[in-house]
This record gives sequence, C-alpha cells and structure tokens, in this order.
Amino acid sequence: MAVFPQPLQRLMEELNKLPGIGSKSAQRIAFHILQAPKEEVSALAEALVAAKQKIGYCSNCFNITDRDPCRLCQDPRREDNVICVVEDPRDVVALEKTNFKGRYHVLGGAISPLEGVGPEQLRIKELLERLKKQPVEELILATNPTLEGEATAMYLARLLRGVVPSITRIAHGLPVGGDLEYVDEMTLTKALEGRHQI
Amino acid sequence: MAVFPQPLQRLMEELNKLPGIGSKSAQRIAFHILQAPKEEVSALAEALVAAKQKIGYCSNCFNITDRDPCRLCQDPRREDNVICVVEDPRDVVALEKTNFKGRYHVLGGAISPLEGVGPEQLRIKELLERLKKQPVEELILATNPTLEGEATAMYLARLLRGVVPSITRIAHGLPVGGDLEYVDEMTLTKALEGRHQI
Repeated sequence: MAVFPQPLQRLMEELNKLPGIGSKSAQRIAFHILQAPKEEVSALAEALVAAKQKIGYCSNCFNITDRDPCRLCQDPRREDNVICVVEDPRDVVALEKTNFKGRYHVLGGAISPLEGVGPEQLRIKELLERLKKQPVEELILATNPTLEGEATAMYLARLLRGVVPSITRIAHGLPVGGDLEYVDEMTLTKALEGRHQI
Repeated sequence: MAVFPQPLQRLMEELNKLPGIGSKSAQRIAFHILQAPKEEVSALAEALVAAKQKIGYCSNCFNITDRDPCRLCQDPRREDNVICVVEDPRDVVALEKTNFKGRYHVLGGAISPLEGVGPEQLRIKELLERLKKQPVEELILATNPTLEGEATAMYLARLLRGVVPSITRIAHGLPVGGDLEYVDEMTLTKALEGRHQI
C-alpha cells in the first residue's frame, strides 16, 4: 500500500528528479504545495512550462534567450571587436557583473573525452563561421580554470591562431579577499607565474 | 537590465518561494529545467497542479487524502477502539511504519500561543464529535515531544478525562541505536522516569 495518496506520491517523485532535491526535500516541498495558496502553485506550474517554451538559444552567440538574436547581441552600445568565449550561459551572467562590454560566444560546455564531449559537440563550428562573417580584434578565452576548460582554451587557441589577431586567456591567481594560506598549490603556482610589476 | 531572460527570471523567483530553496538552488533547478526533456517539465507542472486539486482532508480523521473518507478510515481490518492523535499527516506516515493498526486523528498542528495557534485552530472540536459518535477504549496522544506538543497532549488529556476510558502518551526515552553520551539531558531525564522492570 502506498503511504501517501497517489497524486502526492507522484509529485514527490517528480520533485525528486530535480538537481539537489533528495527525497526529504521533495517531501517537504510537496507538503508545502498542499498548504500553499492555489495561485502560488499555478504560478509555479506556469513558470515551469513558460520557461521551457519561451527560452531557446541565440542563433548568433548561443546564449539562452527569449528573443533571437538575444539582447546582448542586439545591443548597439557593446563593442563588436572583442568576443569573450565561455562554456555556459551562467558564465555570461557572472561576466556581466564586471565592466566587460564586448560580445559573447557560449560553447555549451568544454571538451571532455571522459564524458564523450569533443569539439564537434560544442559551438566551435558556429564560432568559426561567426568570425568569418564579422572578424574581431580580440578573442578572450574565459572557459573555466579546470582540466576541461584549459583543454578547450588550448584547442581554440591552436585552431584560431592566424584567424584572430589577439587570443587571450583570463588570468588565474588568488581570489580577491582570499587568504594565501588556504589557496591550493595549483592556484598559487599560477598566481606566481602571472606576477607583474607594480 | 535583467540579467536573465524574463521567463527564466520568473521561474527562479517562483522556485525561490519553496521551502529550502535559496536563490542558488533556484538558479540550478531553473537551468536544469531549460535542459530537461519537455515531457519531464510538463510532468512536474501537471503533478503540482494535480496534487493541489486532488488532495484534500479526510472529513473523519483530517489526514490528507485523495478520497473521502480516506483509505485508513475505510480499511475494515483496522481496530476501531483505539485512536492515535497526531499533529501532522507526516506523523501518520511515520506511525504506519510501526505495527499500529488502530485509527488516526490529525490535529493539524499543536497549541502554540506564540504562533497564535489555540485549541480552536486545531481539529479538537472534530475529535470530540467523532468520539461522541463512535466511542473508543483508548486514545494515544502522539503529539511531538516539544513544548507545543506536550502542551497539546496535556490540554487533550484534561479535556477528555472521563470521555475516554484510557488516555495514553507515547513514551519518551533514548532513541534505538542512540548513545547515552550524546543524548540531551531532557531526553535522559525522561528515559530515567520511564524506566521499567526487565
């Protein structure tokens, strides 16, 4: 015999599929749903469906967007001669908090042989086509400072040498506000390598 | 300017209203939704609405149910002469894992003057009516071992003295598998008070 009424059981199972939601959290949320105002529950259900329906990829930069081309590609105030290459749409959000005012290109991941992700699975062909149509002066490789991100940056640097005048990689080093003592040795090595005159 | 496309922003805000879902978790789940198969997202949205629509309270025991009276009240194999009084439908789920085979009554909370919950806010009137219609031999008070749960048990014991032949309270003591050393002193005091011959 099922312990919970079937519709509740089903809701818990669906919630349990979400990332970071274990069976205890799913139960807690499901009971919250039972007690929440009907309008709040409908709003959540509609937001889920709407996000899925209305959001797609920009055909130029492959960031997520609800219009095509996306706001960032359409914005006439941004510089056209520099493209920052990132792995994920969330990286664009992070970079938008800095004063970077160029364009973006979202790869949709990083090269990872272990996970079966090769260059063909990423938006690299699309980047090449984009650069052919509208050449830039600088390409900033802002993939993550992980093995996969580094490999992807190396691959792109080799591929695009000669195509783009300047190919740069974002700096590795100590995080601002960080403590030397607690930083891992790879980061510290990179921070030393990247030292500059003051 | 909004950092995320509006439908995504809205989804994050709705997710953020759920218990235990902070803004980081909401973002993580929202991005998962964008990448998840359309069917999975529809299934979740439908489960939310269905749970809200189909689940109500049993008019007899006030447990949550998708039929009225609920499965537990309808089950002819359960004993009618003992009712276990609990605060919350989740407590019924917990007790169903034991070999208890009587009936339940769900109060819908506990007396808590601080939160403005008095006896009138709980299903106590309904319990009295139920006992009038069908008297029982024993009433087990299984409210939580908290200040509010204890107060509620005391209130019910006083109210129903004379109405029900036997009113009992579930035992407090050491949790099975627990370690004496790590148990709080209130629990240990209760465990000593509740000692019995072996």
